Amino acid sequence: MLVGSLLDRIVDNALAEDLEGGDLTTEATIEPDARAIARAVARAELCVAGGDVFARVFYRVDGGLRVERLLADGTDAKKDDVLWIVEGSARSILMAERTALNFAQRMSGIATIARRYVRALPAGSKTRITDTRKTTPGLRALERWAVRVGGAHNHRDTLGSAILIKDNHIQAAGGIEIAIERARARAPHTSKIEIEVASLAELEQALAAGAEIVMLDNFSPAEVPVAVARAKGRALVEVSGGITLERIGELARAGVDVISSGALTHSAPSADIALDLERLGG
Amino acid sequence: MLVGSLLDRIVDNALAEDLEGGDLTTEATIEPDARAIARAVARAELCVAGGDVFARVFYRVDGGLRVERLLADGTDAKKDDVLWIVEGSARSILMAERTALNFAQRMSGIATIARRYVRALPAGSKTRITDTRKTTPGLRALERWAVRVGGAHNHRDTLGSAILIKDNHIQAAGGIEIAIERARARAPHTSKIEIEVASLAELEQALAAGAEIVMLDNFSPAEVPVAVARAKGRALVEVSGGITLERIGELARAGVDVISSGALTHSAPSADIALDLERLGG
Amino acid sequence: MLVGSLLDRIVDNALAEDLEGGDLTTEATIEPDARAIARAVARAELCVAGGDVFARVFYRVDGGLRVERLLADGTDAKKDDVLWIVEGSARSILMAERTALNFAQRMSGIATIARRYVRALPAGSKTRITDTRKTTPGLRALERWAVRVGGAHNHRDTLGSAILIKDNHIQAAGGIEIAIERARARAPHTSKIEIEVASLAELEQALAAGAEIVMLDNFSPAEVPVAVARAKGRALVEVSGGITLERIGELARAGVDVISSGALTHSAPSADIALDLERLGG
Amino acid sequence: MLVGSLLDRIVDNALAEDLEGGDLTTEATIEPDARAIARAVARAELCVAGGDVFARVFYRVDGGLRVERLLADGTDAKKDDVLWIVEGSARSILMAERTALNFAQRMSGIATIARRYVRALPAGSKTRITDTRKTTPGLRALERWAVRVGGAHNHRDTLGSAILIKDNHIQAAGGIEIAIERARARAPHTSKIEIEVASLAELEQALAAGAEIVMLDNFSPAEVPVAVARAKGRALVEVSGGITLERIGELARAGVDVISSGALTHSAPSADIALDLERLGG
Amino acid sequence: MLVGSLLDRIVDNALAEDLEGGDLTTEATIEPDARAIARAVARAELCVAGGDVFARVFYRVDGGLRVERLLADGTDAKKDDVLWIVEGSARSILMAERTALNFAQRMSGIATIARRYVRALPAGSKTRITDTRKTTPGLRALERWAVRVGGAHNHRDTLGSAILIKDNHIQAAGGIEIAIERARARAPHTSKIEIEVASLAELEQALAAGAEIVMLDNFSPAEVPVAVARAKGRALVEVSGGITLERIGELARAGVDVISSGALTHSAPSADIALDLERLGG
Amino acid sequence: MLVGSLLDRIVDNALAEDLEGGDLTTEATIEPDARAIARAVARAELCVAGGDVFARVFYRVDGGLRVERLLADGTDAKKDDVLWIVEGSARSILMAERTALNFAQRMSGIATIARRYVRALPAGSKTRITDTRKTTPGLRALERWAVRVGGAHNHRDTLGSAILIKDNHIQAAGGIEIAIERARARAPHTSKIEIEVASLAELEQALAAGAEIVMLDNFSPAEVPVAVARAKGRALVEVSGGITLERIGELARAGVDVISSGALTHSAPSADIALDLERLGG
Repeated sequence: MLVGSLLDRIVDNALAEDLEGGDLTTEATIEPDARAIARAVARAELCVAGGDVFARVFYRVDGGLRVERLLADGTDAKKDDVLWIVEGSARSILMAERTALNFAQRMSGIATIARRYVRALPAGSKTRITDTRKTTPGLRALERWAVRVGGAHNHRDTLGSAILIKDNHIQAAGGIEIAIERARARAPHTSKIEIEVASLAELEQALAAGAEIVMLDNFSPAEVPVAVARAKGRALVEVSGGITLERIGELARAGVDVISSGALTHSAPSADIALDLERLGG
Repeated sequence: MLVGSLLDRIVDNALAEDLEGGDLTTEATIEPDARAIARAVARAELCVAGGDVFARVFYRVDGGLRVERLLADGTDAKKDDVLWIVEGSARSILMAERTALNFAQRMSGIATIARRYVRALPAGSKTRITDTRKTTPGLRALERWAVRVGGAHNHRDTLGSAILIKDNHIQAAGGIEIAIERARARAPHTSKIEIEVASLAELEQALAAGAEIVMLDNFSPAEVPVAVARAKGRALVEVSGGITLERIGELARAGVDVISSGALTHSAPSADIALDLERLGG
Repeated sequence: MLVGSLLDRIVDNALAEDLEGGDLTTEATIEPDARAIARAVARAELCVAGGDVFARVFYRVDGGLRVERLLADGTDAKKDDVLWIVEGSARSILMAERTALNFAQRMSGIATIARRYVRALPAGSKTRITDTRKTTPGLRALERWAVRVGGAHNHRDTLGSAILIKDNHIQAAGGIEIAIERARARAPHTSKIEIEVASLAELEQALAAGAEIVMLDNFSPAEVPVAVARAKGRALVEVSGGITLERIGELARAGVDVISSGALTHSAPSADIALDLERLGG
Repeated sequence: MLVGSLLDRIVDNALAEDLEGGDLTTEATIEPDARAIARAVARAELCVAGGDVFARVFYRVDGGLRVERLLADGTDAKKDDVLWIVEGSARSILMAERTALNFAQRMSGIATIARRYVRALPAGSKTRITDTRKTTPGLRALERWAVRVGGAHNHRDTLGSAILIKDNHIQAAGGIEIAIERARARAPHTSKIEIEVASLAELEQALAAGAEIVMLDNFSPAEVPVAVARAKGRALVEVSGGITLERIGELARAGVDVISSGALTHSAPSADIALDLERLGG
Repeated sequence: MLVGSLLDRIVDNALAEDLEGGDLTTEATIEPDARAIARAVARAELCVAGGDVFARVFYRVDGGLRVERLLADGTDAKKDDVLWIVEGSARSILMAERTALNFAQRMSGIATIARRYVRALPAGSKTRITDTRKTTPGLRALERWAVRVGGAHNHRDTLGSAILIKDNHIQAAGGIEIAIERARARAPHTSKIEIEVASLAELEQALAAGAEIVMLDNFSPAEVPVAVARAKGRALVEVSGGITLERIGELARAGVDVISSGALTHSAPSADIALDLERLGG
Repeated sequence: MLVGSLLDRIVDNALAEDLEGGDLTTEATIEPDARAIARAVARAELCVAGGDVFARVFYRVDGGLRVERLLADGTDAKKDDVLWIVEGSARSILMAERTALNFAQRMSGIATIARRYVRALPAGSKTRITDTRKTTPGLRALERWAVRVGGAHNHRDTLGSAILIKDNHIQAAGGIEIAIERARARAPHTSKIEIEVASLAELEQALAAGAEIVMLDNFSPAEVPVAVARAKGRALVEVSGGITLERIGELARAGVDVISSGALTHSAPSADIALDLERLGG
């Protein structure tokens, strides 16, 4: 469940962009007392995500609207499935429509891709797919939710959540060993120490220094299983960058623990959801 | 130029998501007085967009950073071109890096697609490519800017900017004629009246009622030129939905005035930009 | 209907100015469990506007208050008519009173003036009265609503909604023709091109260049009908500045399409509405 | 001086209403590198107010603009006097113009009326003119500043600043004496106790109960001097409601200490200030 | 009662710090449909404060939670007393718990100290205990409420509420007399004039100049009663700084009118309140 | 370094509480052009913290003020040491003073306590002292910074940063083993799994299930070393609750890895810092 205060802030921000000058067309063409029912319909197969925020948009436009969710987040929807239903003032529904869909299409798009990635894992695989911090500015909480809904996992939430030492940090610190040592000395004890390594030699240094997660940077397909073997029992192995559906199976079979992909959030195409409106009454 | 107050609000909102708990890794591994220079580099061909917001992220993290823009928004960057340079505290640069790139990659991604669409128009064509209101919630102003930077045009900004009568409005109003009449009676005189039509018959009704823009909904390739011919001198013709690079040429040659595409903003893949950091001094 | 999220932001902002340090007087003199009913009464004839925001102020102070609207926005209220009724905690009502009235008096003041302007039009006139962007900072959406409620029309909502080329733009662009051409090339196709002209000669240039609306700047009473005649069938004619009740009739009879007046919003006197409170119960 | 953080919040809020969708006209017609100088000119006599916020609008749009103030707040400006000068990017100036003027015209309008009221006092009079809490929602701090700039005084700032017992409080408390007693018992010791009285009899009760300020409600011109005589040396006398320029002199001569007027802020007509722009350079 | 809009802003701000990245533990370990009841229990004697904000935290996380208040603000709770009960989704309760307690513990901590101070006054004493402006940034309204709940009084709310002339102001103005004169000339008539004095000589000057409240700075125990005697009937006497439970009795017996203590808010230890959760149903 | 955007939000929020109605006293008694220098002085020994936010308050009130930091955060200041110096408009300095000190006193108070706790560790001890999530609502980032400045460590930042399974979660999940298993299945791989245990038996279960950190709840002094011995090499041991200076040494000697204390942030007394102002010039 997404927190109410968070939803309000994000939704209000989005409505401010589209609706504060009123809805010229709706106000001109629809009578104030017209009522309607609207159905959010999947125009293609998708993994449902965003029911909370979809509903919240309608409520924030008009507290008198009623939203019912037919399919929970995480459901595999088929083409033409009805996901959610809104009922109430026709004007209010039309005013909120675009904003609600913009959220839902993005979130379902991400969940759909996430699910596809997860299903690309070999049966029984213990490898997990995660997102990264490459999320849309302002929408991180929603996008991370969508990733989980799709069955994938989240990586660290913020720069303040966990340690991930990258090449720049290593350089600045003066080496892998000193970087890990400093990180362990200062980081919260709740965070594992993750470090990026660019070669098997660096991997060894990192393991020797006590890294708890190693992120393989640009390892060749042949090197990955070697790295996994060396890290076994000492650290988790993460691979990031250039992840495709094809590579997922290969990496999982190589025994990688974590496959992280920025594309899950920064390049997921929008899911196709439409709102079909029907006038009610007189 | 994007307005300063707008940039601050959007940037601060994004930084709140990532950085308010501090940057555990950077604080642990980099000395407070380390200085660095960082170069934002295109990892692939792209149309540059987002220089304003990229710079603003660094300034909002640390007012002492200095950002220089080598390539203006709208430039065609080649692989390995340096777009922007940041100089100052190494810690501050690393803390701001991801947020700055998240903005720049999204905006350049959109500008790059927009430019590709525009270049798919036949030479000399007067047809324009536009975005829609299917933008990322919270980022509309940035995304519309990126669309313009890429050479495409913006459609109406908000529901309060211009009239666009859709099928739901027509139904609710009781017909095309009455809907147009009401819209003209109430809408600002600065807005043209646009209406969606689903057939040549509806097109005729719309033109007769004085529509100034007609949006063709689901017209077959054969019907489009007919519609254009009928509307000629009476109304602009817009086509929306299912726009691909191939269809752009065909629609332009058919004489369509406006091709609007939600995919420009809702499904543009992120452009590939990296930040290469170099330690300075002692 | 005004959007819920917009109302909350504006109302909360106003309450923050007046009430966050508590209400010393009410807390000292009224028992916490006292209940009351309060009637918002017109102390003079007025056009009702602001029911949404009036109610929202009470709800945002205390979700347990109940507001009933006896007269809808747009009603002509006579002296002593009861517009709205609030019932609930006496303390909460008194704490919200001034803020609620400050909104309602301003909005009804604007609606009342707007209605007076509209009624100054000759019978059967097609001329419309519009507002301008000279609204109170922070209250534009409310004031534009009040203008519509009074029967007048809105001009463009924001600088991003439509084109209006003023003398400064003409100078900067290097002439009327080039300014119009550039505007048409870059502006959304949904916006008409409006331009300010200072003489009949400029009017001709503007019409020749394809202006769709011409705003007459400082035309003498004798020149206005000439301008209208020349623009007939080619562009709408707008007059702005120095609008008085007397001039409205004259301009309308001259055939002007649009009369825009900043005074509608920036100088409308507050409508006289009072809140009469009655203790309930024991 | 108005506080920086307050100005930013109010200015950013206003810019969000007008400018976030960009400025279609300016972007289309003015080159990005055009530079200009703009002079804010009084089109009629006025009391200058709002220099801080006028400047802040331009800075918040574009930190590269430079604003110079020729006439300080509180100066009596004559027609055609230049108040403030802005220099920099022509685009930025035009984008900020309307918002800056909307603030400055409102504030100078209030200061101008306030000054007129103050000058209506007889020479040597100790009576003071004050505002009320009938300010524009969202702009109280600016409007109170304008009142002071004009030479008048502020009444209490918020419901939490000082005690003012009105008829509703008296009724709810069960009488003047008990209301004053409770107020004194709970209110901060820094606040005087003010109470509204509707008759000479109530005045006596209030004075007997220790009221420190009495507000005369609906006293006849003949009763006011009687009330003043009775309160002399025991409490300040305030008159509010229906204040006109003529009544000010009369009330002051009657010895009233404070004349408070809501019209100072809720019905002050906008001052006439224009921005004259001149292109610079090539 | 605390104002709804104020509560929302403060609560949402706090939730943003703790909960926007979701609650990893709760989401992992508790089923979405688990329901629970939770009791906020005093772990030690305390004065209850903060029921409004405690409840609001739960509502803002999940509008479906229900909060019941067993003990009103201001009640003396004994160890193990149940203050408030929450019922609903187990996940939502656990997500809101810490934030709700952080507010309630701070407010009850302040109320508890305030009550202790008030009870340290001799029986029948007319001396009042007040807070100062040394409140926690962002929580002033809540902390002032807690002070009142505990039976103490508030000092002025803001710098704009009342006059308090300190040594720096006296120096800058050029003396006590001129400072008081200027303050009286410019301050709202609703505010008393308070001034800090550092000696009996300064006290005389302040009284002669018409100070209405004198704040004794660093007066010896022997001087305080002298100061009280001199001020009697002319001004209220306030003592601030270094207030301990022991000194309160002594100062009250010396006839001081007001004892103000920053420690009430800036150094009150947190009250010990815990939330005991019980699973409901199947 | 604290992030600029974060500081602005927190500072602006605090200034809104105190200063938006202006500073009556300062405006009345100090000339607008008076200049001053002010020194923030430690009135007692303390650990300096809050220089960033102290400076930011002055800058946000008046961008023309200049702040110099003589003692960096983390310095042990002696009584009468000057920490920071502000120079500029006397009015602006006085307006900002209280808010700046409120922040600095709280942060230095926390840093001072944190340092005292850390120094209570036996020489050479590897035990670390940490804070908890019992921070002041709205100030978590500042308080966590102060904790680090004092030499202690931070625990997890938010509910979304790391896993901490408490008794309620265990109950709801149905046992220690299942709770840990679920947490590991869903939590980010970057987070260690921490669990609260109430007995040696539970400790064994937790270790067996793979807990990476165990938090001992209410273990007797005799049990703690036993628990430490059992966890050795398998999990970190944390003790929380009822931490006093005396217990710190004892727990450290028992080999506990982490001692977490809510009192560090929720009950730290304010440090004593004053601002001494000196008029400059004429």
